[in-house]
Amino acid sequence: MATNSRSIRSLCWVSAVAALFCLGFIAGWFAKPTHPNYTNAVHHASDCSKSNMIKHFFSPLSRKFTRLPHLSGTEQNLIYAEQIQKEWQEFGLDSVEMVPYDVLLSYPNVSQPNYIAIVDAQGNEVFNTSLAEPIPAGYEDVANIVPPYSAYSAQGQPEEDLVYVNYGRTEDFSQLQRQMGINVTGKIVIVRYGKIFRGNKVKNAMLVGAKGLILFSDPADYSADGVKPYPEGWNLPGGGAQRGNVMNLNGAGDSLTPGYPAKEYTYRSRPEDGVGLPSIPVHPIGYHDAFHILKFVRMNIHTNNQVGRIYNVIGKIRGALEPDRYVILGGHRDAWVFGGIDPMSGAALVHETVRSAGRLLSKGWRPRRTIIFASWDAEEFGLLGSTEWAEDNAKLLQERAVAYINADSGIEGMYTLRVDCTPSLHTLVYDLTKQIASPEIEEEGISLYESWHKKDNWTNERDAPRISKLGSGSDFEAYFVRLGIAAGRARYTKNRKIERYSSYPVYHTVYETFEVVEKFYDPSFTRLRAVAQVRGGLVFLLADSQIIPLDANQYAISLNTYARSIAAIAQTHREEMRSYEVSFDSLFSAVENFTVAAREFHERLENVNRVRAINDQLMYLERAFIDPLGLPGRPFYRHVVFAPSSHNKYAGESFPGIYDALFDIEHSADQEKAWNEVKRQISIAAFTVHAAAMTLKPPA
Amino acid sequence: MATNSRSIRSLCWVSAVAALFCLGFIAGWFAKPTHPNYTNAVHHASDCSKSNMIKHFFSPLSRKFTRLPHLSGTEQNLIYAEQIQKEWQEFGLDSVEMVPYDVLLSYPNVSQPNYIAIVDAQGNEVFNTSLAEPIPAGYEDVANIVPPYSAYSAQGQPEEDLVYVNYGRTEDFSQLQRQMGINVTGKIVIVRYGKIFRGNKVKNAMLVGAKGLILFSDPADYSADGVKPYPEGWNLPGGGAQRGNVMNLNGAGDSLTPGYPAKEYTYRSRPEDGVGLPSIPVHPIGYHDAFHILKFVRMNIHTNNQVGRIYNVIGKIRGALEPDRYVILGGHRDAWVFGGIDPMSGAALVHETVRSAGRLLSKGWRPRRTIIFASWDAEEFGLLGSTEWAEDNAKLLQERAVAYINADSGIEGMYTLRVDCTPSLHTLVYDLTKQIASPEIEEEGISLYESWHKKDNWTNERDAPRISKLGSGSDFEAYFVRLGIAAGRARYTKNRKIERYSSYPVYHTVYETFEVVEKFYDPSFTRLRAVAQVRGGLVFLLADSQIIPLDANQYAISLNTYARSIAAIAQTHREEMRSYEVSFDSLFSAVENFTVAAREFHERLENVNRVRAINDQLMYLERAFIDPLGLPGRPFYRHVVFAPSSHNKYAGESFPGIYDALFDIEHSADQEKAWNEVKRQISIAAFTVHAAAMTLKPPA
Repeated sequence: MATNSRSIRSLCWVSAVAALFCLGFIAGWFAKPTHPNYTNAVHHASDCSKSNMIKHFFSPLSRKFTRLPHLSGTEQNLIYAEQIQKEWQEFGLDSVEMVPYDVLLSYPNVSQPNYIAIVDAQGNEVFNTSLAEPIPAGYEDVANIVPPYSAYSAQGQPEEDLVYVNYGRTEDFSQLQRQMGINVTGKIVIVRYGKIFRGNKVKNAMLVGAKGLILFSDPADYSADGVKPYPEGWNLPGGGAQRGNVMNLNGAGDSLTPGYPAKEYTYRSRPEDGVGLPSIPVHPIGYHDAFHILKFVRMNIHTNNQVGRIYNVIGKIRGALEPDRYVILGGHRDAWVFGGIDPMSGAALVHETVRSAGRLLSKGWRPRRTIIFASWDAEEFGLLGSTEWAEDNAKLLQERAVAYINADSGIEGMYTLRVDCTPSLHTLVYDLTKQIASPEIEEEGISLYESWHKKDNWTNERDAPRISKLGSGSDFEAYFVRLGIAAGRARYTKNRKIERYSSYPVYHTVYETFEVVEKFYDPSFTRLRAVAQVRGGLVFLLADSQIIPLDANQYAISLNTYARSIAAIAQTHREEMRSYEVSFDSLFSAVENFTVAAREFHERLENVNRVRAINDQLMYLERAFIDPLGLPGRPFYRHVVFAPSSHNKYAGESFPGIYDALFDIEHSADQEKAWNEVKRQISIAAFTVHAAAMTLKPPA
Repeated sequence: MATNSRSIRSLCWVSAVAALFCLGFIAGWFAKPTHPNYTNAVHHASDCSKSNMIKHFFSPLSRKFTRLPHLSGTEQNLIYAEQIQKEWQEFGLDSVEMVPYDVLLSYPNVSQPNYIAIVDAQGNEVFNTSLAEPIPAGYEDVANIVPPYSAYSAQGQPEEDLVYVNYGRTEDFSQLQRQMGINVTGKIVIVRYGKIFRGNKVKNAMLVGAKGLILFSDPADYSADGVKPYPEGWNLPGGGAQRGNVMNLNGAGDSLTPGYPAKEYTYRSRPEDGVGLPSIPVHPIGYHDAFHILKFVRMNIHTNNQVGRIYNVIGKIRGALEPDRYVILGGHRDAWVFGGIDPMSGAALVHETVRSAGRLLSKGWRPRRTIIFASWDAEEFGLLGSTEWAEDNAKLLQERAVAYINADSGIEGMYTLRVDCTPSLHTLVYDLTKQIASPEIEEEGISLYESWHKKDNWTNERDAPRISKLGSGSDFEAYFVRLGIAAGRARYTKNRKIERYSSYPVYHTVYETFEVVEKFYDPSFTRLRAVAQVRGGLVFLLADSQIIPLDANQYAISLNTYARSIAAIAQTHREEMRSYEVSFDSLFSAVENFTVAAREFHERLENVNRVRAINDQLMYLERAFIDPLGLPGRPFYRHVVFAPSSHNKYAGESFPGIYDALFDIEHSADQEKAWNEVKRQISIAAFTVHAAAMTLKPPA
């Protein structure tokens, strides 16, 4: 590993966000450890003095988290893991363990670089794409910057005509082939990043028989108007290219050990039987290179898959009254390069939450329930660290986990709060954000809730800030979609109405530095502090409230919305609905039943005498939506209401089984069979919602 | 329905076994509702005066349970359900509900009877098998006796040469084809009953391409030496034939709604897509007819599959302290004809246990946990009633069920006790049977345990009465093998060392009457009372002990035995084990880890302060052996340690995934792939045992 001697940055956001839990704030919050009505006890965040805290918590150690590349499977990422373990121990957690797994990783071949070449009629390479991104100032002497590549790409050197297929969505391929008569089979396909997960673009290209896939970042998708490229601004430079894995794991975790933790003794599939591995070469390029790409190209891809060791760091605070009930705060540590935004802007918040919790422990506080802090590895390689740990601990989690709060990037824009969570957490999120100050300088004295509400009102649904469904793309997936644990995530985001790019322009490039956050995204670190307060507040309230602050009534409201929404999609086939006798009545009836059960449950909460039994009903509510048979063809996506989309959107559609069956109507030769599958999925959804309602009723 | 006027039997075993829980016995037992050490509180069963009780509890209503045929889906079985519901309400249960499902059933065609014909060269039927069994004396005027048939047989009238294939096991077919060069493809196969489940015989016949299957009861398998045929003795008459379903459901429940309860709104597969339905005609005959069957026959099978309504009766006693913890006593009510042994000798015990419990309730007693009593329907059609209810209530059961005790036939022989249960129940069974008196007249003053120990010592394993693994064939299956709920069953049985027949000779024939029990199996009803005391005692102790009386140490001992046993089977392939690098070390290491965890868990039990948390660990121990991915190709068999066998035995082998993979070694062309599957299954078993050990450790 290279040591580097560039100037020490004067202020590091990692420490800056320590301000999130100034002692007065936390201590006040938890002074009454068993109050059933948590909202009264939430103190206003402005109790903390912003300016003082930021400098006070400056820590030389935490600076290192973004100074060196720490790709999963490399020594530097282990060093960071060891540092985190050591610090968490020093902060005072009851236990901190390092948990290794041996998973399939993927790296470029150091001696044979990957690139795309334009080839002339004689077969000579007349233009080659860049082998690396231009290094940003101040990082010139850093070693071990992995060049842009598509992890898990197949190896190969296909030479073929090139066809541009927009975003590489199902409808993009259909349009090209059906409407424009262009055959993609046997060609190399070039698509722009955005709209759907890159792994789905690869799947779609493979389905039509393409021989290779090139991904590029279109400035139309990865540049904000009026913003300069990094380092002058936060836009993507023309030489930057987005790294990323291109698997279709569908929640399987390690490709070679689907369903089981990748321990030393675990049986591994042969590499050719691995789950979700693409069979064609794939490579990402920047837009400068993309402008040069012509009709005929050669891909030169030598990326290797190899089993490597990854490390999760797991810290625990034992619960005082309910040690066998777990609230989890987890986020990943591994980064494609420096991880300035992804993930360290989130990992640092976890670190500072641990520090704050440790300080409270030293003052005699102890939460009612056990809190588990996780620093996941290999998220970038397919959510591997978090999924393997979920597989390893599935029984304990299924029986004991109250909630999982995710801590990936804390910021992806400068506009307002973004929360994606299960419906039962909505109420807690609203209550909590009303107690947190807006981080915007011009909004002195107004709450985060008010600021958020003003900027992103959920107008169609209700007069409240918009909360989205959990999709995929981060470590909550196995906890929520496979195990059915109530889950949520929060970050600061862009203005979705006018900023069209996916994620943020420098996403997964070498330009994701500490400086991009410090100079542009959050110079005062108040936005990250607000995010930390939301994440930390959720964890502490879930761990310490006598009655678990989950709201079944809100789940009922959401189910109603989702049922109407999926039925409306089906209504575009009114004629077939009639002839195949497809009805949503059973689902609506189940939702109504659930709504009554939820209302009566919360009414009974008024006079509780068996707290543990009531809390079990709340804890297991999310579990009730798990179908052990999984979604068709996706055994690890088992939540009947929420799943990552197999089609179009990151966030996914509600009632994914029904949605997918309706989607297949368009592409199926046997219409009766296709409509029978719709009916089957409606019946499964109705049954599952009924079963969930049963869990809310008096137990005997 | 026919009414019948035959003479009223003077003493009915249904009421006789009411003696099982005389009030002194129960009241003494449960006088201390929260004692942690349950064994001290068990009073000796001989507190009850045998002779008095038998007549005292005579009940005119209960006589009816064996007077009329009550096949599942018929009006009479609904009438019995209504009577049971009414009586359980009168006995004082907190709630009794009738729970219907609409499942695929199967009946002979009334206008076109099923039979086998010998056909001459001109195609004339020169001999036909009987259309019905000779009716036993006293039942001549009973209507609605369904003739012997194989439920779910395909329809058809194949005419072919007949081939005899012994018991129809895999090895029987192999031997015939490989060693004797006889080709069975395209032939009609005749096999004798016994050794394996009849559905597996059908599967094996279908696999070799047979066109039809005839099942018969060989006197060598269905007659005891020196015993006369019914009604002079309890042997099978030559005109008797064993009914039974011939599906391969593998735990799916209703064939048309696998994985989901068969409610009115539930989507049903098309009949041709049903799970486990045979594609060839199948028919059972008696040995008199079997002697006539010659080389060339015609099968005439017109059995119809049809969706029909079935009814479970579910009664509940709400737990006083833990209403959300369930102990279940369930047994089926439906019978092929009268059900004299199967199931009413067991159903009556449930009925009387309910009566006793109701009497205790009226005296102010209430168990710590909720007790659920179930009268299942359609067990004979593939465990349908119990499986549909398990599917309907899967979430509640997964989170709340402490144990399931099965109550099928109470007696199948006159020799000693037979118990099949999960290892964690062994200790409780031993402790309990030491407190119950032997029912044998010549054993006055000795305990059931001593009597049982003397007659069936588990010599190879330990000096204690033999307890067997749970296999399949009754309603515990979905609870144990799919959901992972600790389960057990008990009955009085034959001397397995010298009595070679499967089950008992008149099994599933019209000769299973009240009289066969009253005259031969248990004239004093003391054996059934002892069985009732075991079943009822298990239920009451599981429901009322402060600490759930499950023993993780005993599970460790059994796992050790099972691991050694499966490794020994693999060692028959010593050479391949070496060349494919197959090792059981990971499994042995996992078992050792589990053993330590179990020991330490029970040591910590000595000073418990969080009873609910400890009990949750005990309750969820069995759940920890469930793999949500199921066994290969059998998604509803999910227990990694126990499953019904796909090959040879009713009881099944331990570590079935490994066993099946080893079995396939012999039949696989790709040896490397086959051994890889063995390695994969060892790794799954090792992981699962490790995961189970984790559930026993301190929670944080």
